[in-house]
Amino acid sequence: MGWLHAGHTSLIERARDECRAVAVSIFVNPRQFDDPADLERYPRGEVRDLALCAEAGADVVWVPGVDDVYPPGFDTSVTVERLALPLEGAARPGHFAGVTTVVAILFGIVRPDRAYFGEKDGQQLRVIGRMARDLHLTEVVRCPTVREPDGLALSSRNVHLAAEDRAAAPVLRRALLAGRAAWADGERDAAVVRGRVSAVLATEPRAAVEYVSCADDATLAELARIDRPALLSLAVRFGTTRLIDNVLLG
Amino acid sequence: MGWLHAGHTSLIERARDECRAVAVSIFVNPRQFDDPADLERYPRGEVRDLALCAEAGADVVWVPGVDDVYPPGFDTSVTVERLALPLEGAARPGHFAGVTTVVAILFGIVRPDRAYFGEKDGQQLRVIGRMARDLHLTEVVRCPTVREPDGLALSSRNVHLAAEDRAAAPVLRRALLAGRAAWADGERDAAVVRGRVSAVLATEPRAAVEYVSCADDATLAELARIDRPALLSLAVRFGTTRLIDNVLLG
Repeated sequence: MGWLHAGHTSLIERARDECRAVAVSIFVNPRQFDDPADLERYPRGEVRDLALCAEAGADVVWVPGVDDVYPPGFDTSVTVERLALPLEGAARPGHFAGVTTVVAILFGIVRPDRAYFGEKDGQQLRVIGRMARDLHLTEVVRCPTVREPDGLALSSRNVHLAAEDRAAAPVLRRALLAGRAAWADGERDAAVVRGRVSAVLATEPRAAVEYVSCADDATLAELARIDRPALLSLAVRFGTTRLIDNVLLG
Repeated sequence: MGWLHAGHTSLIERARDECRAVAVSIFVNPRQFDDPADLERYPRGEVRDLALCAEAGADVVWVPGVDDVYPPGFDTSVTVERLALPLEGAARPGHFAGVTTVVAILFGIVRPDRAYFGEKDGQQLRVIGRMARDLHLTEVVRCPTVREPDGLALSSRNVHLAAEDRAAAPVLRRALLAGRAAWADGERDAAVVRGRVSAVLATEPRAAVEYVSCADDATLAELARIDRPALLSLAVRFGTTRLIDNVLLG
């Protein structure tokens, strides 16, 4: 969606290393915004983005208009069902249907052998991976989250953080690492692990917690016992800016 | 879906003429049956079907099991929205979502340059064409309906017709041709044209009419005035067997 940062360019660089040709799409997709104000204020910067793509090694950058992606008469929707229901899907109705539909279109146009997505959007990665497998579209490659030195995950939305919120935001990473440390010490009660995360978030009064989840990594169903690989994830608001992050357990 | 007839083999033969290689799938897709009894009694005959495919010139025939198409964890749905709402979509809830999902999967596996579909399933042809364009999957080629000498459109379901119903079923074609004749004579009131079709159907007491439609060929919205290309279509039951057919106006 543009306003590229080192998280995006890490995907381009990895694709550059592993593939014969690299295509990038930049498209702020109106269908994945449940909130028109959020779409309106999403940061955009085409000249800057094109320079970053070139520097990272992209061969092709496609910057379509809305009508190129959704021509008149467009009438198709691609949805992932159970996996898209909880977490971001519950918080942002229609969001994942917008994501999977536009990504299926981009895959249809580009026909990539592989597509590179970051771990930061953990549920999105799993939803797109499921769709790509189910419809035989491409192989989805999972790439690690790129972080600021203080641990904040890179996100195009970070630009909206007020200075005090930016200073407070690394609490997300500290909270997730506290939860993972409890798990690494042998804790298998998911409620206890979620509680550790929440306790750290509670130390930061600027952080408005939306959810803390400890879910089955494969199905994203909330766990009672952590007896299988799990995704520990959260969504937190600072003012009007909503941030997400996650770590794997196992 | 198998139980192939000369309508299907005409598609294979045309693809044979126009393409370098021809693949056929035979899969009675459970997701497109809203009625389990209809799925159960759908005719099947693999040996016979494979012989017909070979004879018509298919290079590959794929006869997957249900788990090949929908592996464990399968969670994706491809839907066409407005175009799938009326007519067959209204009569058979979930039917087109099942069709578009399985056809997207088949296109994803085979990656055909072209896909050949018959005009007999008029709405299905338009719904699949819309999906294939919207998701950039393939080019859908429209092929004429193949008919018995008495005008009955070939259908795998015809095998279920009792002898008296089989004798009566050509009334569908006669009714549609009467509607088309009225249009060809200059009639542009859609209700009058539908009325001509219904009047012919009413001469056959074994025919239980489900709908008679005169719709915009592009959107399938019912027309008041026939001031653009139109699809004149119907669905009629004979006993428990449901038949559909259509003609184009313009």
